[in-house]
Amino acid sequence: MASIFPSRRVRRTPFSQGVEAAGMSVCTVYNRMILPSVFASEEEDYRHLKSHVQVWDVSCERQVAVQGPDARRLLDMLSPRDLDKMAPDQCYYMPAIDRNGGMLNDPVLVKLAEDHFWISLADSDYLQYVLGVVDALALEVRVWEPDVSPLAVQGPKSDALMARVFGEEVRDIRFFRYKRMAFQDTSFVVARSGYSKQGGFEIYVEGSDYGMPLWDMLMQAGEDLEVRAGCPSTKERVEGGLLSYGNDMTQDNTPFECGLGKFVNSPRDYIGKAGLLARAEPKQQIRAVEITGDIPPITAPWPLVAGGKRVGQVTTATWSPDFATNVSIAMVERSHWDAGTALEVETPAGMRPAVVHEKFWR
Amino acid sequence: MASIFPSRRVRRTPFSQGVEAAGMSVCTVYNRMILPSVFASEEEDYRHLKSHVQVWDVSCERQVAVQGPDARRLLDMLSPRDLDKMAPDQCYYMPAIDRNGGMLNDPVLVKLAEDHFWISLADSDYLQYVLGVVDALALEVRVWEPDVSPLAVQGPKSDALMARVFGEEVRDIRFFRYKRMAFQDTSFVVARSGYSKQGGFEIYVEGSDYGMPLWDMLMQAGEDLEVRAGCPSTKERVEGGLLSYGNDMTQDNTPFECGLGKFVNSPRDYIGKAGLLARAEPKQQIRAVEITGDIPPITAPWPLVAGGKRVGQVTTATWSPDFATNVSIAMVERSHWDAGTALEVETPAGMRPAVVHEKFWR
Repeated sequence: MASIFPSRRVRRTPFSQGVEAAGMSVCTVYNRMILPSVFASEEEDYRHLKSHVQVWDVSCERQVAVQGPDARRLLDMLSPRDLDKMAPDQCYYMPAIDRNGGMLNDPVLVKLAEDHFWISLADSDYLQYVLGVVDALALEVRVWEPDVSPLAVQGPKSDALMARVFGEEVRDIRFFRYKRMAFQDTSFVVARSGYSKQGGFEIYVEGSDYGMPLWDMLMQAGEDLEVRAGCPSTKERVEGGLLSYGNDMTQDNTPFECGLGKFVNSPRDYIGKAGLLARAEPKQQIRAVEITGDIPPITAPWPLVAGGKRVGQVTTATWSPDFATNVSIAMVERSHWDAGTALEVETPAGMRPAVVHEKFWR
Repeated sequence: MASIFPSRRVRRTPFSQGVEAAGMSVCTVYNRMILPSVFASEEEDYRHLKSHVQVWDVSCERQVAVQGPDARRLLDMLSPRDLDKMAPDQCYYMPAIDRNGGMLNDPVLVKLAEDHFWISLADSDYLQYVLGVVDALALEVRVWEPDVSPLAVQGPKSDALMARVFGEEVRDIRFFRYKRMAFQDTSFVVARSGYSKQGGFEIYVEGSDYGMPLWDMLMQAGEDLEVRAGCPSTKERVEGGLLSYGNDMTQDNTPFECGLGKFVNSPRDYIGKAGLLARAEPKQQIRAVEITGDIPPITAPWPLVAGGKRVGQVTTATWSPDFATNVSIAMVERSHWDAGTALEVETPAGMRPAVVHEKFWR
């Protein structure tokens, strides 16, 4: 694959200097920003993540800041998830949809105050959708992308490392909750969250200038914990069933198809409610699918076939060292989505046997 | 710079096979799609573009299709440019703005019918803004990304090549007008437009399956014209003063700052009209700036300085072989934007002398 042309448009991050010094060898572009993909090798990075602790530059999880008298009213219009019980220190995984129930993003909503939220994005300019709604209705709320770049600390030794930098209090942060933790002359929102199943935190670094000082401090404090620069691992996330917007789901899919129906519970009259509820019985749904044989890298959906008929598609697939098989995420039609169903997958390298797994591997 | 991790999310195009066979060596990601940046070398690609004819995979110029009874009403809400005189075969360069007059994109609007348009995008999901407006107001219009991937034919021999593939009639297409031209069992919108000053066309290839057949036909038909795979050239576009959204302008800028004030003439009450007109006297504006001395690749704005004070920023800069100098696009404050003003530019390699040029070089 070709290398990336340098430009302002494909943005560097507050941590790029650290990431490059750590030997990033492969990357991707996510929300028009560089996201590391590989340091040593996919497998070595994966093994290290599962054994030690990594620091991830996930600045590309850009925030949509929403603040003002109409902030909550706006979010009630946008969120299929009931926000009434959201605590002042809580983060909510929230499907973002259009009026037909098609997914526009799958952000994490962070509540900073009753009239101030961050929508922490997956890979699409949902900022523009929010602006479109706000501008069309002339709502009294400011919507902007703040200078906030998340840095994730992930892996089994995350608590140990974080406690050294932010104090023992970080251990008390509950899952998808946050505390404001002091750093130098400022403080950061520190949440127990992250795009792995190994445990850890996301530090919402507010102010680019704090980026490298924090990076360096984590690296120094974690030397004996074997801390390393890392990044989301395709192998680890597929084993754990973590979906990727743009890969495993797009605007063509509803939250129900993505197994996110439990987050569709708002009593409000949000945009897309009728369209979404009309599609509450999905014809296809996300499944874990095991694939046998050699497979190439996946760059477009691979059809899933049964009896010569297309019954779904594989959207992410990779070799799992720990489970010694190819693990994949697929969208499978109802007729063939039961665990144990034998299928075939049409890869560019030929047909491969596949079977619907009962659940994800982790 | 690192190479790109293969995934569905960073999309391949209908022409990727041709582009890869032609030896794409550097690329970028634009609207979550691969856009080639270099084949032989930046300078060789540039010289060839100015002498012969190139075929560019600009599939990443995604279309927002807008169709239905409220299509024109919607566009009147979105467009600062007067659409009343837009002819049935016309393309309009149209600044897209938020309610404060900040630019969200700088697309080309293509009129297919009175109730059917394509908004051909620069690099941002303006689709989501349009959806936000439509969903908030429950407008009767369908908005979607169709299977349409532009292929540009650019360079002085463009007319000759296009006439061989589409017939002599293509020569009659006027600037920013289009004709529907037959290809195999279908037809494409073919416009005289493109992101270079060398002349040429953009073929809106509707239906991915037609991609490689068209690519191959152009390559075969142009062999004696020395046709090659190419891509937008930073050197050529900066010489010619073609702006790049995300590089030379962002949501922080108004159309007036970008020298696009002539496209702000709609008599309608469009979204952002008050906010935009309040900023009609810009404090800073795009200028051509010449820079002396060696310069590194630019990946973040470089401050422009006069008397120790910041008076603007350079956003794209590159060596121009034909003009034997560094050409750049900058945003310069009014106090220092007159032609001939001597400035300094703060590059990562040190301060360099700079001067405001009267106009772009071409």
